[in-house]
Amino acid sequence: MPADTAPLMPHPDRLLPPDPGIRRLARELYDGVRELPIISPHGHVDARVLLDDELFPNPAELLVTPDHYVTRLLHASGVTLPELGIGGQPLAPDRARAVWHRLCDNWSVFAGTPVRYWLESELSGIFGIIDEPCAANADAIYEQIADRLQQPEFRPRALFARFGISVLATTDDPVDDLSAHAALAADPTFEARVLPTFRPDRYLDPARPGWAAAQDGLGRAADLDTGDYQGYLAALENRRRYFVEHGAVSADHGHIDPRTDPLSTAEASRIYRSALAGSVTAAEADAFRRNMLLEMARMSCDDGLVMTVHPGALRDYESGLAARFGPDRGHDIPVATEYTRAIRPLLERYGNHPNLHLVLFTLDETVWSRELAPLAGFFPSVYLGVPWWFLDAPDAIRRFRAAVTETAGFTRTSGFIDDTRAFCSIPARHDMARRLDCGYLAGLVAEHRVGEDEARRIAHDLVAENPRRVFKL
Amino acid sequence: MPADTAPLMPHPDRLLPPDPGIRRLARELYDGVRELPIISPHGHVDARVLLDDELFPNPAELLVTPDHYVTRLLHASGVTLPELGIGGQPLAPDRARAVWHRLCDNWSVFAGTPVRYWLESELSGIFGIIDEPCAANADAIYEQIADRLQQPEFRPRALFARFGISVLATTDDPVDDLSAHAALAADPTFEARVLPTFRPDRYLDPARPGWAAAQDGLGRAADLDTGDYQGYLAALENRRRYFVEHGAVSADHGHIDPRTDPLSTAEASRIYRSALAGSVTAAEADAFRRNMLLEMARMSCDDGLVMTVHPGALRDYESGLAARFGPDRGHDIPVATEYTRAIRPLLERYGNHPNLHLVLFTLDETVWSRELAPLAGFFPSVYLGVPWWFLDAPDAIRRFRAAVTETAGFTRTSGFIDDTRAFCSIPARHDMARRLDCGYLAGLVAEHRVGEDEARRIAHDLVAENPRRVFKL
Amino acid sequence: MPADTAPLMPHPDRLLPPDPGIRRLARELYDGVRELPIISPHGHVDARVLLDDELFPNPAELLVTPDHYVTRLLHASGVTLPELGIGGQPLAPDRARAVWHRLCDNWSVFAGTPVRYWLESELSGIFGIIDEPCAANADAIYEQIADRLQQPEFRPRALFARFGISVLATTDDPVDDLSAHAALAADPTFEARVLPTFRPDRYLDPARPGWAAAQDGLGRAADLDTGDYQGYLAALENRRRYFVEHGAVSADHGHIDPRTDPLSTAEASRIYRSALAGSVTAAEADAFRRNMLLEMARMSCDDGLVMTVHPGALRDYESGLAARFGPDRGHDIPVATEYTRAIRPLLERYGNHPNLHLVLFTLDETVWSRELAPLAGFFPSVYLGVPWWFLDAPDAIRRFRAAVTETAGFTRTSGFIDDTRAFCSIPARHDMARRLDCGYLAGLVAEHRVGEDEARRIAHDLVAENPRRVFKL
Repeated sequence: MPADTAPLMPHPDRLLPPDPGIRRLARELYDGVRELPIISPHGHVDARVLLDDELFPNPAELLVTPDHYVTRLLHASGVTLPELGIGGQPLAPDRARAVWHRLCDNWSVFAGTPVRYWLESELSGIFGIIDEPCAANADAIYEQIADRLQQPEFRPRALFARFGISVLATTDDPVDDLSAHAALAADPTFEARVLPTFRPDRYLDPARPGWAAAQDGLGRAADLDTGDYQGYLAALENRRRYFVEHGAVSADHGHIDPRTDPLSTAEASRIYRSALAGSVTAAEADAFRRNMLLEMARMSCDDGLVMTVHPGALRDYESGLAARFGPDRGHDIPVATEYTRAIRPLLERYGNHPNLHLVLFTLDETVWSRELAPLAGFFPSVYLGVPWWFLDAPDAIRRFRAAVTETAGFTRTSGFIDDTRAFCSIPARHDMARRLDCGYLAGLVAEHRVGEDEARRIAHDLVAENPRRVFKL
Repeated sequence: MPADTAPLMPHPDRLLPPDPGIRRLARELYDGVRELPIISPHGHVDARVLLDDELFPNPAELLVTPDHYVTRLLHASGVTLPELGIGGQPLAPDRARAVWHRLCDNWSVFAGTPVRYWLESELSGIFGIIDEPCAANADAIYEQIADRLQQPEFRPRALFARFGISVLATTDDPVDDLSAHAALAADPTFEARVLPTFRPDRYLDPARPGWAAAQDGLGRAADLDTGDYQGYLAALENRRRYFVEHGAVSADHGHIDPRTDPLSTAEASRIYRSALAGSVTAAEADAFRRNMLLEMARMSCDDGLVMTVHPGALRDYESGLAARFGPDRGHDIPVATEYTRAIRPLLERYGNHPNLHLVLFTLDETVWSRELAPLAGFFPSVYLGVPWWFLDAPDAIRRFRAAVTETAGFTRTSGFIDDTRAFCSIPARHDMARRLDCGYLAGLVAEHRVGEDEARRIAHDLVAENPRRVFKL
Repeated sequence: MPADTAPLMPHPDRLLPPDPGIRRLARELYDGVRELPIISPHGHVDARVLLDDELFPNPAELLVTPDHYVTRLLHASGVTLPELGIGGQPLAPDRARAVWHRLCDNWSVFAGTPVRYWLESELSGIFGIIDEPCAANADAIYEQIADRLQQPEFRPRALFARFGISVLATTDDPVDDLSAHAALAADPTFEARVLPTFRPDRYLDPARPGWAAAQDGLGRAADLDTGDYQGYLAALENRRRYFVEHGAVSADHGHIDPRTDPLSTAEASRIYRSALAGSVTAAEADAFRRNMLLEMARMSCDDGLVMTVHPGALRDYESGLAARFGPDRGHDIPVATEYTRAIRPLLERYGNHPNLHLVLFTLDETVWSRELAPLAGFFPSVYLGVPWWFLDAPDAIRRFRAAVTETAGFTRTSGFIDDTRAFCSIPARHDMARRLDCGYLAGLVAEHRVGEDEARRIAHDLVAENPRRVFKL
């Protein structure tokens, strides 16, 4: 071991408050929830990975290349996307190893980030790595992980069981036949619930490339004619029912803004025809998309799918990179989000509907105290989505609780959502959230704002009850 | 007592910083101010309650039904507004008791909120309740409070004296004859000051329903012809003088935005006539309202009324509920607020006027460090309003001090404002603010940013001097 | 000494976290960096002060009159700008003393502000003052400082050496001949680097008064014809080269917004001609300015000047005061800033250019976590400017680290920038930043988020490496 290699030993009290008295209580609260099963009601793992249960190919393609949380900061540090394996998968062995070196060479740039925290937890907890990665030990660590990945207990299903996941929701295209989900549900050797999620963004926004062709596919999947707006609505309703029948509990929406302005049927029909004909304007496309988010709420009142909204990411910000390497490579940047006026048409129509659960997320933390907590603190349908993406990080999670609890309490929050495509990071992410919530609760007890028994109950509910209740599990 | 009932014993050190050394100093600072008289320069208690001094009807109508801070989160938790007594007052005895049950059944949803904190303080400190409310003890607690409410020492004036309130400002319609205030002032048995506040919103915004009819009433009250803009201005000036003569020290303004764009007299006159005729456009109404906020500043320079601005609440958000149950029932939601450009016309004209005190509040905490602290840190007329409404809560108050002190210090802040219509919550609210400010000061001392003697002086000033100075008391 | 005079003894542990364990580590980290040389890559000291090395005139003109950080809050407290010496320099002796009294009389209004912190450090550390200023000791303190200012070791160069400044960047007009910088560089008795900074705002924004005349001066300085757009661009390129030849490493841009929308050459040329002719519209001026910020990035890719952006101050907010007393007197107020969309055209063109370093500052802290950290965490050209101006303050600096580190780490931040025209405050400002960063790091160690060795390395890098790397020093 090189002289400058540091040990990789995640501390048992990491992320708990440093004050000894508060830490003692936080640890006790955390001990009460640390082993509870993981409920993951929103994420991006592919169901087929669990169905096929094949060996993971190599450390780079498991832990680096597909995870834009990891590749972003490496890119900022001067590593190009191809050097990270992006655009060239599957990776030849020497290339996979070179990608891994990029991570280890730049390990220090992650200091203070949750990515570092998750990777440390994964390397140590799953793969038994005992040294912090660096240029000198990159090969040794690579080989140790690669060796483990050949062992049966590191296949997806074995890890899934080891992670203690009881519910995992995937994110799926409305035309997906959900055969992987069906096969998993039918498999008596696989006990956990793996649920599809209806994600119709690309069918709702006529500004997206390939929108018109997508409607053909939607029509085929639904066996309905999507040549006009009514047929299109019917096809969406049809596919939502198909998802419900296959176990889906939610529909997810990731538009740039959460506006829900209604259009008359005549106007929506007109824009729909224009869009099919390829002659829609940007303003019409926006208007149509906003009308469709309202329509999705209407359908949710009918079919009961929980509606989650993840707005405010300007996708494919650097269009040159996006054109070369495709979406979800790290070139998304948040913008300010307005919720109060945007969501008002929806809430005026359906905000008190008993069937509607609406979980509102944001990348703009200014709306937590100003808009989302007041909304979730009044409307029985509205729940506060916990911190997401750039905000799924220790200090941001603390800011979240401090910003929303005083108006909306704990019962109006969603429970943790990992939203990840990095399969091995799931337990580390849930563990981080549990530690932080327990630390926050311990701080409230220390200031005599909640009692100890109440804190224990809330800590348990945030992990075990809120996600079941909010996501109708 | 059921096995799961927890004791209700607000801790003497609640809300003070948990670090033992800092807490010791915070407690000492707090002990120096805890018993100081309450100055309440902005609130919503009805002066007639104190004049008539009648018994409060029952626990539900005292503590639940009229307080939208309480009813909001109950509504979010699935209790309808009628189930909370809203829209049906006065409540029959069984209905009042049922409302009370709703609160007790849902006690846990308030965990971590200031509403819980205030209610605990009230139940324990005023009514001697010793168990936390729950479904099982709801009747017992109801009866204990109801019993006390029959006793003379729980009449409004007795409580007022017990609370140690030296100044209480109410909020009043410009046409109010202020007879209740006059009678209180003339009553030798009532020593405290109960001051009216001029709140002209509904006369300034032609978009409000009933605006034209309101001008008739304004004209009658002022004995002036409000048939044209000049008469309308004169009537407002007249009523402001009437308020000043009856002890008013401030005028309060609660528009959606704080813009102060001037109109020419000709244009203002034209819009005024259109509005009287019922043909005003939304844009004209906005322009007129903004011009009138500027006019209010001009009048404040003349008559000396402190000008408080409470912008940024989108009122009656759910129009269906608003139509059924009226305003101030919890269906107001904040929006982003811009102050720098909005208030510039006012400050360019009057920002250095020796007679103007302008106290700026916000529901959008992003303006604290960005706009309000820089404004209050330069203009001698501008004061920072302390956290209000959704932000009148422990963590938000800490964020406020941390956001504004570094630019504006302590002398440019208003002192605490309770803004409540929940009479019994007044001492708990002021007590909360005193604890938090003392905790903040103790933290500054612990970091050697202010000295102990200076912290003692500031703690005292925030309670006793700032409100007198800022509100010209 | 009057009975109520408090000692002025800045505590050795000031600003370090109060928890004893965390403070111990923070102090150790701080001890490792406290004596490192000061690198000041952005500020407003005049190079001629160092060249001429004349005695400073008096305490008021050294510490009060020129520093709008100090005069702002005095103005808010009722002291007029003339009473602070503004508009009347050089000050007669009695007037200088009167100005000094204003500061001492109002010493308490600075409690809790960084201005107090800096002044205490300066008075104590540089001038040996041992009592807190107050009305009673104002004369005594004045005389002690005035006396020192007559001594050779209080001349600018002696102080500069005592402060341990190794690099100081000034801010200069593009037509400046930089003779002071050249003379300093040629002086063998002066070893530090004093570098000019290219600040072309008034040449880029046709809405500024005197814009057309300024282009004449620009043309003369460059010996090029600025009668058309191409000549104007060439003149700017010429002057940038001149600055580079005189040691400049950066160009600084302080527009109201950071938009970078391109214009066609034809349209830019057309607006340029209109602006020269004095017939430009406000919208055209904005469009031209935004196009020019993009052009500055293009030039930075060519000549390598680091590009710093300081947007979001609405300058000369109170136009009456601005007309009487000129710019930079405290009448600037921040506005909300949008970066994601604003800077996109620039980043799409040059965001991955190896020659571009783009350092983004803000007065709107909402963009830290939402926009700037995601940008700096993806684009290799983008660096996060540390807190600036109103945000250069202890709590704001902590919010900055907590807001950006989780997405962008430490390597993507700029290192400290003092941005001051108050020469004597430079060491206090850098010292404050070092204390706060060490405190933040100690907190991360206490939560086991970074290791102790790593914290030591980061503390060192933030002072010694980041500014060199980011500013190409």
